[in-house]
This record gives sequence, structure tokens and C-alpha cells, in this order.
Amino acid sequence: MQKILDLPTPCLVLDLDRFESNLNKMTSWVRDCGLGLRPHAKTHKCVEIARRQLQKGALGICVATVAEAEVMARAGIRGLLITGEMVGEPKISRLIRIVLQAPDTMVVVDNEANVQDLQRAAESASVEISLLIDLDIGQNRTGVQPGEPALRLAERIARCKNLELKGLCAYAGHVAHVTGFQARRESSREALAKAVATRDLLSKNGHRMEILSAASTGTYNIDPNIAGITELQAGSYVFMDVEYRGIGGQSGAVYDDFAPALCVLGTVVHRSGGKAIVDAGLKAFSTDRAFGPELLDITGIKYEFAGDEHGRLVLQHPSREILLGDKLRFIIPHCDPTVNLYDRIHCVREELVEDVWSIMERASGSSYF
Amino acid sequence: MQKILDLPTPCLVLDLDRFESNLNKMTSWVRDCGLGLRPHAKTHKCVEIARRQLQKGALGICVATVAEAEVMARAGIRGLLITGEMVGEPKISRLIRIVLQAPDTMVVVDNEANVQDLQRAAESASVEISLLIDLDIGQNRTGVQPGEPALRLAERIARCKNLELKGLCAYAGHVAHVTGFQARRESSREALAKAVATRDLLSKNGHRMEILSAASTGTYNIDPNIAGITELQAGSYVFMDVEYRGIGGQSGAVYDDFAPALCVLGTVVHRSGGKAIVDAGLKAFSTDRAFGPELLDITGIKYEFAGDEHGRLVLQHPSREILLGDKLRFIIPHCDPTVNLYDRIHCVREELVEDVWSIMERASGSSYF
Repeated sequence: MQKILDLPTPCLVLDLDRFESNLNKMTSWVRDCGLGLRPHAKTHKCVEIARRQLQKGALGICVATVAEAEVMARAGIRGLLITGEMVGEPKISRLIRIVLQAPDTMVVVDNEANVQDLQRAAESASVEISLLIDLDIGQNRTGVQPGEPALRLAERIARCKNLELKGLCAYAGHVAHVTGFQARRESSREALAKAVATRDLLSKNGHRMEILSAASTGTYNIDPNIAGITELQAGSYVFMDVEYRGIGGQSGAVYDDFAPALCVLGTVVHRSGGKAIVDAGLKAFSTDRAFGPELLDITGIKYEFAGDEHGRLVLQHPSREILLGDKLRFIIPHCDPTVNLYDRIHCVREELVEDVWSIMERASGSSYF
Repeated sequence: MQKILDLPTPCLVLDLDRFESNLNKMTSWVRDCGLGLRPHAKTHKCVEIARRQLQKGALGICVATVAEAEVMARAGIRGLLITGEMVGEPKISRLIRIVLQAPDTMVVVDNEANVQDLQRAAESASVEISLLIDLDIGQNRTGVQPGEPALRLAERIARCKNLELKGLCAYAGHVAHVTGFQARRESSREALAKAVATRDLLSKNGHRMEILSAASTGTYNIDPNIAGITELQAGSYVFMDVEYRGIGGQSGAVYDDFAPALCVLGTVVHRSGGKAIVDAGLKAFSTDRAFGPELLDITGIKYEFAGDEHGRLVLQHPSREILLGDKLRFIIPHCDPTVNLYDRIHCVREELVEDVWSIMERASGSSYF
């Protein structure tokens, strides 16, 4: 079996013990709440992980893009919810092919013209498409406004014989990373109150509201207390990252409900004076946050981005000596866009590589990044 | 032939007319200077582009990583210079396999222990490895210090019978994006003076200095005037990006010596009030710069990142109407790490897709990102 130290760097390394513990913790939490879990695969883009989530009892899998939906549908994953609007071509044609393969696939809508396009495509392919209305509950991104605008959209959908409205999707992206448990709880309650009120309005008007999908890893222990939520769409809990660790937990400054399971492994390729250079730079980590990677299990070192293929470690008070050729593990600033940079995930237990999982089926290629 | 408007978004779109004009301009400039060009493939990671650069007379191709070297060597690209240190395993074993396949491959070194490891591996495989000494001329990243430290390293290499020193690699990453032509020229002259002095010192001590590789797209018209430079390793000129356009040219605030040839194509998936949401977010653009993407050919719109899969267009004074379903082209903030996010480049002329080129051979996979 391959050893971690033999892996080509930079690469993704998943600690299977931690990963499994994260899966188990979320599974039993959601079950105890009497809710459903449809975890978001935009985090991992990985069929092997989606399978494990379903084996643990997930209702299905959320995906953000049509390409993610294709990869999952082709692999036999069912219960898909596409959380991004499928607008225009070729997205709608690709959606139809997915629905033919996986008829229980749901997709969000927020626009009457798009509803009309979906109806036309569904009718022409003789399929039925299940929809959730995407609500803008404060993120100012996609989604129809709650209340009357959502009701009008539901009425439009009800007139389409090939479309079936299943409920609402109310993702509060602006809430997920609010620092401090109390502040996050308040934000989430405020945002989701709009979703619950909209659900009530639509129900009262005769629209079936089987599903109200909400929550993130940041609010998994907040939103179940809001009456009306039927399922959670958390994603990052499988891996965790520096960002989520910083938002604070219910009882402490570090949010450690889930363990940091995913790291980038890098090699020290230069060592001089008070610095070490690793082979993991801004093609190895996403850079969308104000903070950088953090070393796992070593303190007193600050990581600075130093170009596409390099990171500079400023050795302030390193808790161990850093030598040329050392392989170091870094906790990722933001997991989703970092995973997207790679073709494969190396699954490790202790110091051995137990498995290699493909990201978006890209690992069939022959080259390491 | 496929139309641009039929492409799945987000995707990379390369304007072939502009790309070819960029290739031609750099080619004739370098030829007129009487210098060599070994363009950097860290920008494009694409065999098809490397081939075109060689057809235009490039001496070879620079690569940053062992994986890039493998992809290029396997495709028959020769004259490779690996500009990153090959430290430890499995990098050294992979390097040996590349050298067996492409014996003229060169690699940089900055450390005596690494030289020793390379000698051991080369001897054991009965190959000879060509080296350039990587000089730190101000970037504070990799590289040995100029002057005496470089001389000591050259002496160490000279004692290794399977290693051949070819010269110096003096990349001034801190200079490439200095704003203002005069300031950039001063910075580059200051940095490269150290490289030239080191070359003279090593020559005087009997070390063969056939190559002094330097320059970037930002200094392609500065460094050829510095006596001693033998070849340029510019990369970004093939595509250009928002960052390079902002550094200023020899006669103007916009650096337009090369045309912005590469764009990300996105679709408007939501339209309401003064905003439009496109399907190109922080998985579609690298975010390592302080500025975001810019719309090609449309003014009065500000792009804001709005999550992994979304960008928000703030419609300030848009020079044309923006409608749901519109396909828009964005100039990329920083080309190298953005190209790295994709599997393929769609090559277009007018409104048609003439060709599709694979990035790192990843396009053999079946899915679009």
C-alpha cells in the first residue's frame, strides 16, 4: 500500500477516520432531529463520497451545476437536487437528459421565462421535471423574492403540465459564515422566517410544499429548530476548512463540531534563513478568503502565497524543525473551491493511502497537477 | 461547426486571431533582438499551444512542475526547462523518466543537497541531467543568492559527472507586474544586474554559461537590452489578463502590446433590478488579485464574486442591455491560475468554435466543469 510520504505533491489528502466521524456525526444529528439530509456535493464533486452519504441514509445529493448532476446521475446517484438555475442552452437540454436517466431529479427555478422554457423542453421530451422555487432570503444572488413574487411563480408552475412543484429551496449563503453562534442563530432565524412564511402562503393557496430545503454546515444545529424545515443541505462538514473553524461553535471560539479531515500535502522545495518554500501555491489552494492555509499539527509558522506554484512559510517560532524535502499538511482556507483544483482525493489512514477517489471523474487522466 | 453561443458555460474561449497575433508579435520581436524564446507553459499547460510556439521558432518550452514536464515530454515537446526545483521523491524519479524520454530537458537547482540527490539518481539511471542554477534576484522565493553562493553551487555541480551546468535561470517575479514602464525598467535592470554579475563570476571561474534565462511578459521589451541575457521565458503574452493590462505600456496607461485573447464565457442565470447573476464565480476565475474580471466590449458594469458558482454584475451604466440567458465574455484577472481551473480551451474565430485544446490532457474526461 502506498505511503503518504510517497504521494506526488501538491495533492489532497483525506483523513478517513476524521471523514467517517464527520459523516456519522451529521447523520445521527439529522436523524435525531427527525429531518432529512441531502448533503451538497459542490463541496466534494466526488461520486465515492456521495455514495457514502447515501449509504448513511441521506435522502439524495445536492449539486450546484449541470456537470455535477451529470457525473452523479451517470454513477447511479439518485435524489439529486440541482441548486443552480438551469437557464438557456445547452443547460436545459443537458437537464432533460439527466431527468431521463434519473427521473427524481429536482431543479430550482426563480423566473417565469425559465419555467416556460423548462415546460417546453419537458413536454417535447415527454418527461416531468420536479421543481423547487429558489428563494432569495437575503443573499442577494439568485432566487425569487419571498411572499407574493414566489406565489406568482408557483401559480405559473401550476399551469405547466410537465412541471411539478415540490417545495422551496432557501439557502442563506450570507448566514453560513457569520461569526459567533448567537449572531449566526439570529441571522438564520431572520432569513428562514421569510422562507417559512412563504411556504405557509403557498400551502394556503393550494401549492404542495413537500420540501423546504435549507441550512449549511454553519447552521446545521440551528435550522432544525425552525418549524417547517424538512431537510438540510450542508456540504462542508465532510471536510471542514480554516474558514468554518473560525466562525465559532456553540461553546467556544473554534467551531470543532466536525474535524478538519481534508488537507493539502506539500513538499519543502527550498529552505534558507527564516523561510521555507513549499510547492503549494495559488494553484494548490483557493485564494478567495482573506486568510491562508494553516499547518496541521505545527504551530509558529505563517503561510504566505508566493506565486502560482509556491507558498512561503515564515518560520516565526516553529514548533518543530522544518527541513528541505519535508512533507507538510495544510488545513485548507476554503474547501469547496480548493477541491475543485484537483483531480483526485488520496484517502489515508495513519500513514497509508487506502484509496484514491476521483473528482468529477477527472482522475481517469494520466497526469498529476 | 459549433457556435460560441452553444458552448456550456462557464468555459474558456480563446480568440484565435488575437492569439496568433500575440504569438507572431513576440516571435518577431525576439528574433529581431537576436535572442531565444523559451515561453513558459505554466500559463497554458497546453500541448497544442506549446507546439505552435515551437513552430514559430521557440527554442523550447519552460514548465513549472514535473507534471507539466511529463505532459509536454509525452507529447514530443523538446527543449524543456523545468523552472521549479525537483526536490525529494517522487519528483526526482519522475524527472529521471522525463530525461530518459527527452534527454535535452533542463532543470533548475538552488541547493547542494539537491544536487547530490540528482547526481545519485542520474548515475543510477545512467543519464546526464542538464542544470541551470536558479538565482534569487529579489523575489525572496526559491533560488540561491547571486555571487559567491552561486559559485559554490556551480563548483559542487562541476564535481558531479552526471550533471551538466548550462547556465542560470533568473526570473524576477517581483518585477513582472511593477506598474509604469520606467519603474519596471529600473526594477528589472537592478534585479538582472545581479544575474549578469553572477554569470561573469562563474564564467571567469571556468563554468560554462551558455544560457541566461530571464524576463516575463512585463519585461519582454526591457530585458533584451541587458547584455548577457540569452533567452526570454515570457508566458502570459499568449493570453493576457486584467493584471497585465493594468501595468502600463511604454506609451500609455494600458499595456496593450499584446491583445486580450482569452476570456471566460458566462451565462446570465438571474436578472432582477440593477443586478444580473452569471454562472461564473470563484470556481471559474482565480481570485488571487485585488480586482475581478472585466467584461469584454461592455462598459458600465462591475463584477463581484458571489460564491463558488456565481458572479454578481452590478449594472451601473451598462453600455448595452443585459438579459436573462445572455452569454457574456470576461477578461480574466490573472490568466495562469484561471486556466488551471479548466480542462479545455475553446478556440474561436468570429462566432464559431474552430477547435478544442486540452489542458494538462484533462479534456479526455467526459464532463464539463
